[in-house]
Amino acid sequence: MDRVTMADGAGGVSTQRLIDSLFAKYLGNDYLSQMEDATRVPGGAELALTTDSFVVTPIEFPGGNIGRLSVCGTVNDVLMSGAKPRYLTAGWILEEGLALSVLESCVRAMAETAKEAGVFVVAGDTKVIENRSGKEPGIMINTAGCGVFDEKHRPVSADLVKEGDVILLSGNLGDHHAALLGKRMGIENDIVSDNAPLSQMVEALEQAGVALHEMRDVTRGGLATVLNEFAESTGKTFVLSEEALPVSPAVRSFAGILGLDPLYMGNEGKMVCIVDAKDGDRALQILQGSRYGENAAAIGTVTKAEGGRPGVVLATKVGGRRILGPLYGEGLPRIC
Amino acid sequence: MDRVTMADGAGGVSTQRLIDSLFAKYLGNDYLSQMEDATRVPGGAELALTTDSFVVTPIEFPGGNIGRLSVCGTVNDVLMSGAKPRYLTAGWILEEGLALSVLESCVRAMAETAKEAGVFVVAGDTKVIENRSGKEPGIMINTAGCGVFDEKHRPVSADLVKEGDVILLSGNLGDHHAALLGKRMGIENDIVSDNAPLSQMVEALEQAGVALHEMRDVTRGGLATVLNEFAESTGKTFVLSEEALPVSPAVRSFAGILGLDPLYMGNEGKMVCIVDAKDGDRALQILQGSRYGENAAAIGTVTKAEGGRPGVVLATKVGGRRILGPLYGEGLPRIC
Repeated sequence: MDRVTMADGAGGVSTQRLIDSLFAKYLGNDYLSQMEDATRVPGGAELALTTDSFVVTPIEFPGGNIGRLSVCGTVNDVLMSGAKPRYLTAGWILEEGLALSVLESCVRAMAETAKEAGVFVVAGDTKVIENRSGKEPGIMINTAGCGVFDEKHRPVSADLVKEGDVILLSGNLGDHHAALLGKRMGIENDIVSDNAPLSQMVEALEQAGVALHEMRDVTRGGLATVLNEFAESTGKTFVLSEEALPVSPAVRSFAGILGLDPLYMGNEGKMVCIVDAKDGDRALQILQGSRYGENAAAIGTVTKAEGGRPGVVLATKVGGRRILGPLYGEGLPRIC
Repeated sequence: MDRVTMADGAGGVSTQRLIDSLFAKYLGNDYLSQMEDATRVPGGAELALTTDSFVVTPIEFPGGNIGRLSVCGTVNDVLMSGAKPRYLTAGWILEEGLALSVLESCVRAMAETAKEAGVFVVAGDTKVIENRSGKEPGIMINTAGCGVFDEKHRPVSADLVKEGDVILLSGNLGDHHAALLGKRMGIENDIVSDNAPLSQMVEALEQAGVALHEMRDVTRGGLATVLNEFAESTGKTFVLSEEALPVSPAVRSFAGILGLDPLYMGNEGKMVCIVDAKDGDRALQILQGSRYGENAAAIGTVTKAEGGRPGVVLATKVGGRRILGPLYGEGLPRIC
């Protein structure tokens, strides 16, 4: 009775028991408790919709677990659109034999993180699949997010980005990636994942009326990949100062040993914002004063596309210039 | 190049190539082409939100595949709430080594079914996981659905159900379940899955102004499980006429051989509606005239809870009465 069985996913009495004893217990709210196939919720004239599946291994890692991660990733995606995240749906796929205690700690983390981010989990689904590998049973979670655009909302978009804009990063690069990799390799160190919802930080920027032109959370593919997407969508060149890039000493050393570049390592609680130069200092202060923003930094500026080709350039500490492409190939699999 | 690799799920250039060559190609629409982390769409004052993960094996089965199924299941859940399905999000989890041709046929089926159901796939996500089993690589899909409630919408709810109401079923029981099981067992027969979106049927009932009190799609757990949920939420007894239950000869015979009861077998394109007796005949005609409704039947009536205990009772062909509980235990795993 302390492990997940195939019957728990078959839609009958066992599934109901699992829902009652775990999902409803932790995630319950007035919406979820409708317990209908679809949940009726207040809406808005314009919505932001997103989805993300989480297949991270291991499912518990330093600083978080897949339950917390699955809220952060989706909430942050909604935030980056400029909408207010309101609702999440959660589809859990469990491997047969999963310890209920592990499931419980992930459900609890989902509930706590949703509360922190100010969103309700309004619909859920549970499936159980065979553990065909014979290894430790896993969890996969899909969260879809629904946000509502405020009427007084000022949109961000590639069109707003212009030469002279400042590039701000909300904190250290590579923490989530390094924490996961360290755990997989069995290495003991102090690195913890940065998985976090950026709701409070984005709210603070909006409240202050900062001239925010574009923003994106830094996840798979790392900062270099995000900025390459910006270069393509804006037609501009993004020049980074190597010296200004915030990386913790522990991650820098860990990455150095493994030959990894923090510019391509994934985070799960960091954002990059493109801000009008006139608001650069103020926006940086707001980031630094926000939860999860204490290591925020101004890391570069937007310039005209060099030689007509938009891109991302790193101004190195020794005065050189290196072109940064997007991530090619694998990156670290199953990071989220 | 004709199989899915781990790199296709890592969020870099390979992922982008897969998105462009497959997902955007088939599923593309003005919303999806925003290609942002969250998609901006027109909303409504009240929404219906739902989620469902699909882990069916095999991923291709007689009459459909996981791509079609993942649209039907979620669209039908939204429909049953009384809302108009508008948007889907799609999270694809692919096993490494999956043939791109299989993926393509599932993406195409998702696109065709979404079109049939009148919904847009507005956001997507792709992850790749190791094929740890060494068996044929699989696909899992989560779809979340967002519907909008019409202002002139008349809600269905357990509170509306009253003694004398007619129980209508939109077609034959057990087709999806039997088709899957037959395919798994390698049996050649004519049974095909009924996976279908019920949009047109529900629309027709609404247009006609039928006094619809409650409705639900018949999926995992079968009709008996759905009606037990109704019994609990309404406090009434649901009396079914065994003679009236529509089951195709092929499914009846297949189920008989295996000792399965069609009342507990899953469908993926059938609904049960509870209708005011005065509208019973008219509603039945509408169902029978709708797409996928040709075998619709009136299968029973709602009565006072017998002896004060709500439940589901089968009036058998030989004049007996059998109490039908909900599905206990396993059912058929990975049916959806």
